[in-house]
Amino acid sequence: MNFASDNAAGASEKVMAAVLAANAGAAMPYGADPWTAAAEKALCEIFERDCAAFLLPTGTAANALALASLAPPWGAVFCHHDAHVMDDECGAPEFFTAGAKLIGLEGDAGKIAPGDFARALRAFPRGVVKQAQPAALSLTQATESGTLYSIAEISEFSELARAAGVGVHMDGARFANALVSLGASPAEMTWKAGVDILSLGASKNGTLACEAVIFFDRARAADFAFRRKRAGHTLSKGRYLGAQMTAWLDGGHWLDLARAANESAARLDSGLAALPGVRLPWGCEANEVFVIVPRVVEAALKAAGATYYDWGGRGLAPRDYLRPGEVFLRLVASFATTRAEVDQVLGVARAALAGP
Amino acid sequence: MNFASDNAAGASEKVMAAVLAANAGAAMPYGADPWTAAAEKALCEIFERDCAAFLLPTGTAANALALASLAPPWGAVFCHHDAHVMDDECGAPEFFTAGAKLIGLEGDAGKIAPGDFARALRAFPRGVVKQAQPAALSLTQATESGTLYSIAEISEFSELARAAGVGVHMDGARFANALVSLGASPAEMTWKAGVDILSLGASKNGTLACEAVIFFDRARAADFAFRRKRAGHTLSKGRYLGAQMTAWLDGGHWLDLARAANESAARLDSGLAALPGVRLPWGCEANEVFVIVPRVVEAALKAAGATYYDWGGRGLAPRDYLRPGEVFLRLVASFATTRAEVDQVLGVARAALAGP
Amino acid sequence: MNFASDNAAGASEKVMAAVLAANAGAAMPYGADPWTAAAEKALCEIFERDCAAFLLPTGTAANALALASLAPPWGAVFCHHDAHVMDDECGAPEFFTAGAKLIGLEGDAGKIAPGDFARALRAFPRGVVKQAQPAALSLTQATESGTLYSIAEISEFSELARAAGVGVHMDGARFANALVSLGASPAEMTWKAGVDILSLGASKNGTLACEAVIFFDRARAADFAFRRKRAGHTLSKGRYLGAQMTAWLDGGHWLDLARAANESAARLDSGLAALPGVRLPWGCEANEVFVIVPRVVEAALKAAGATYYDWGGRGLAPRDYLRPGEVFLRLVASFATTRAEVDQVLGVARAALAGP
Amino acid sequence: MNFASDNAAGASEKVMAAVLAANAGAAMPYGADPWTAAAEKALCEIFERDCAAFLLPTGTAANALALASLAPPWGAVFCHHDAHVMDDECGAPEFFTAGAKLIGLEGDAGKIAPGDFARALRAFPRGVVKQAQPAALSLTQATESGTLYSIAEISEFSELARAAGVGVHMDGARFANALVSLGASPAEMTWKAGVDILSLGASKNGTLACEAVIFFDRARAADFAFRRKRAGHTLSKGRYLGAQMTAWLDGGHWLDLARAANESAARLDSGLAALPGVRLPWGCEANEVFVIVPRVVEAALKAAGATYYDWGGRGLAPRDYLRPGEVFLRLVASFATTRAEVDQVLGVARAALAGP
Repeated sequence: MNFASDNAAGASEKVMAAVLAANAGAAMPYGADPWTAAAEKALCEIFERDCAAFLLPTGTAANALALASLAPPWGAVFCHHDAHVMDDECGAPEFFTAGAKLIGLEGDAGKIAPGDFARALRAFPRGVVKQAQPAALSLTQATESGTLYSIAEISEFSELARAAGVGVHMDGARFANALVSLGASPAEMTWKAGVDILSLGASKNGTLACEAVIFFDRARAADFAFRRKRAGHTLSKGRYLGAQMTAWLDGGHWLDLARAANESAARLDSGLAALPGVRLPWGCEANEVFVIVPRVVEAALKAAGATYYDWGGRGLAPRDYLRPGEVFLRLVASFATTRAEVDQVLGVARAALAGP
Repeated sequence: MNFASDNAAGASEKVMAAVLAANAGAAMPYGADPWTAAAEKALCEIFERDCAAFLLPTGTAANALALASLAPPWGAVFCHHDAHVMDDECGAPEFFTAGAKLIGLEGDAGKIAPGDFARALRAFPRGVVKQAQPAALSLTQATESGTLYSIAEISEFSELARAAGVGVHMDGARFANALVSLGASPAEMTWKAGVDILSLGASKNGTLACEAVIFFDRARAADFAFRRKRAGHTLSKGRYLGAQMTAWLDGGHWLDLARAANESAARLDSGLAALPGVRLPWGCEANEVFVIVPRVVEAALKAAGATYYDWGGRGLAPRDYLRPGEVFLRLVASFATTRAEVDQVLGVARAALAGP
Repeated sequence: MNFASDNAAGASEKVMAAVLAANAGAAMPYGADPWTAAAEKALCEIFERDCAAFLLPTGTAANALALASLAPPWGAVFCHHDAHVMDDECGAPEFFTAGAKLIGLEGDAGKIAPGDFARALRAFPRGVVKQAQPAALSLTQATESGTLYSIAEISEFSELARAAGVGVHMDGARFANALVSLGASPAEMTWKAGVDILSLGASKNGTLACEAVIFFDRARAADFAFRRKRAGHTLSKGRYLGAQMTAWLDGGHWLDLARAANESAARLDSGLAALPGVRLPWGCEANEVFVIVPRVVEAALKAAGATYYDWGGRGLAPRDYLRPGEVFLRLVASFATTRAEVDQVLGVARAALAGP
Repeated sequence: MNFASDNAAGASEKVMAAVLAANAGAAMPYGADPWTAAAEKALCEIFERDCAAFLLPTGTAANALALASLAPPWGAVFCHHDAHVMDDECGAPEFFTAGAKLIGLEGDAGKIAPGDFARALRAFPRGVVKQAQPAALSLTQATESGTLYSIAEISEFSELARAAGVGVHMDGARFANALVSLGASPAEMTWKAGVDILSLGASKNGTLACEAVIFFDRARAADFAFRRKRAGHTLSKGRYLGAQMTAWLDGGHWLDLARAANESAARLDSGLAALPGVRLPWGCEANEVFVIVPRVVEAALKAAGATYYDWGGRGLAPRDYLRPGEVFLRLVASFATTRAEVDQVLGVARAALAGP
């Protein structure tokens, strides 16, 4: 019953087999291998566009390097107050940008409202030398609260950004989970909606350690190879990144993995929703369930060995604030989550509510 | 006949099997897994000391993070002019240290002379505010020219460094190759000889992507977890790093791999030395062969499909400067290099010299 | 009628005369001159403590260098949301700290509440590697809203900071104005109340360009000379900084200048308070007046040539939010502000309210 | 007899009077004052071009900000090994560029040879990701050895730089001294010879603390205001910088001051050259004299209270290496140096050589 995070799962069998297969013989280092070339080609096809794609091992690096490609040291980067780049990367964006300022915007359920972004842009007027200059918007899809921006919403943000001369970054650590939920194409959820750079996460969804930074406009990527190298993120034996990404994308494998995770989360969500005294502040839209439960349920889950995170009150609107005796949990499903695990959680919760 | 670099080889079967085995089930992320704990324990045992060890995927990151632990932004880092940190990392040390100055010292065969280090220390007197402050010495073992510092030499450098309040870093990208050549223990070649921080490289010697930064004094490691995290080098699924390192160290596997590489290099070296018109500016001391050959030999090797690097004139003392018609090559053997490959190179060279 | 800012005024006659006097003859450069030594000595006497004091030309540099002495690149710096370091220095603190994170706390009238600081500290638990680490608190005295922290309040903040291992910086751009208002001694308002580092501003209060960074614990100052030098803030002809600071401090001149400014502001404040339809959201506590006036008054002031800033709504508590037809102004008095200027503003406002 | 440095002198009377005059009344802060506007206008006229000029208080900041406008964090900046940016600014260029690499080129008498620059460019090929990328050349005029590049030489460097896509910076800390020696116009010695950005130094030649960074192509200056602000180098009361620069330039005052300094140096140089046992490794070309004297002379000068620097052996060609009993001195003349001071030095030296 591991619902702590989707990075607690291993890699899929198919991805693992590809890594094994790529191990044979000699290969050119630093990404000059055929697996990496194949991965780049596959990404261009899947995104229906000639992209500049770069593989690297972590999402933190992908995000920080992408933002450094958009924001100068005196730039302002707008993001949700709870975004991973804001709160979970120990200042990686500040490090890689040489000191840009992250402006955390509030918003229920992990989502920024376009109006709040517009207001924030007005608070950082271009050309006022004493202030940070508007440089980038970072949207997380799916968000840290497991919710989604619709294609229309992404487009609305992009138009505001474009009008202000601000680049759009998408933190897609859970991009595939969002994609299968929205039923959109990769192109629709990114460049067709105005996204300039995507951090495409594969690590949480079936690979060992593999992410891609994708520039939909090659011109913006001119410096990336230098940035990645000097950050130590150009892997010596690039073949393993290439092999992971190629196998992950091949034949829609990435979407199958995401779909499995989302289905587990949906089953968990609807099962919990049916229980008395359990509140869901927002619906499950990808592979994460956020649920308010009585403490007795939480105690029973812990006793049964389930893992998850106590989410404090992050993302809750006032109408959903915790009442005495309640606790707010995040449960994340991965491709490896089984129906049995989901049902076990539901069973434990039901029993706890039924009392002794 | 791939002698371009030891990073052109894949991972050993044993390491690969360990990665596969570690893939099963859920595991805590970010290095809180049992494989990582086992690797840290093994490193402490092998180095006969309570160390703080950190796993990460690249040698560039290992070096740059280690140097950032020793040098403030206004620090001077002394190293050989041809060192990897100086010339092959696109400024990673400057990035991670927030601007420290690398002082490249000349020296034949890739080695700094202690007297030159002492002179350099005098050129950066402590407390002279307009100048960089002496902060770190970085020794590469084996060096970029494939040569070795003896234990006595390392100790001599460390004493000079200690007296000047300067920390000692060892870039051990080919640490195991050096170790088996010297017949020293890991402790003897590091902390017993005064080394403060070691970048222990496994990637070039049988793993997929795995390095360790080892602090022999835990106090110096206080900030490392933050530095690694904000650099994006704390892998989400740390288990794979832990599994690689554990298997690599287990039962002396790392030394066996290095020994195999060194033996191939030695066979290549002595074979080349026996050929007329071929000059070896210095002996092969680990797994790299540096050789001056007539152009006809180089042409024949290339025609036969061998890969290697034209090394320009790096490291050559004046007495060994290239004469007309000569070219200076680097050939690197890895654990995967076969006797047949070595003999093929020798055969091609011999035939080329014999003429048509 | 220049009430735009106190940096619109020139230097006092006494300070100017000192600069002129210091111009004669040769002097050692880079602060090794007798004027600088005299200034350092005077600061130690006035602060009743052996301090490490450094002179430099701007408040932005003073603040950013002070914060860099407290916060590592992964540190969190807590300050008011409207603080100068947060909003008016184009990211200087991020630049000098190599990427620390400024956490802007809300609070009416420019003041942080101790409870909010305590809450913020809890949101950045020490040792959680993914988050910025609590490093510094920056209090502005007088605040950006012209209000003051009492000695008791400063002490309360310092105790919270001390308990959390967080250093205390005071941005004293208007330190003298605060001091004469509180009737406290320099020592009482700083180290006796727990302040670790003070940016002492003289530029806004009668000098040409002169600030001091004062460390009340010399140990914290070990790196400062290097930081200042590499930032280009060690003036070649240090004598002029020394001469300004010495003359400014001499015989309580700095306090006389601040007192004059405060008196002008107080006269303006009480004059405005007496006018119908004019609202003062908080009392004038130093040399700045924040006032809500009908638009007709603002138009009349502008027409009469007065300068001031439209302050938007910064610092206003909900009960004071602007009503239709109102505008919120900041008027700053300097040592050079005359009674005539104050009375002219009051006269214009009165006339505008009386109507045609 | 102060010959330690030209920054030991104060400001000229004319400059001082201008500062005093600018003190009256209120003025807009941060460089929006009429004195600053006048200075910018004067610079454009003097350089016969529409330039973007920025005033700031130190040469270190001017150089580092200029280089940061040319070099990205992964850039290589070529300069003489003894250049001020290399050796005397505690790493300011590395700080402001966020980690660029300074490549110090050797060369007698403080001058780089064009061939050595060309060779260095070849050692940093564009597009090789592991290496720093060629970004800027920094020429010091007059050099740290008091010598000059001819207009033809500057042009030759610029052409090499241009062909390699490298920007040209001139460190003109002693620009005026060079200018009057060469008899060139400001335009001829800069943009007409291919210089992109000039650090124009006034501090060493008659001002209190004033430098200008001049962009001959406004497009390159787009970011400068932000860089300067966040470095704390945008002075609050910009009027004093404007007043200094305007008065300094007015009516050729800057050239008169430089001419006076150069004449003193020339008199000293020829006087020393006439003494037996005194060697001049190169001729005095601006306002600095570099001379090899017997120790007895040095002892006598010190005893007489003269100040100067022992210059070690910097810049000496092998043919001029110090012989036993010799010492190499740098004596700098400023606009304030008197004929009496020069003659006193010569008299002391002559007497010392004559013996007791």
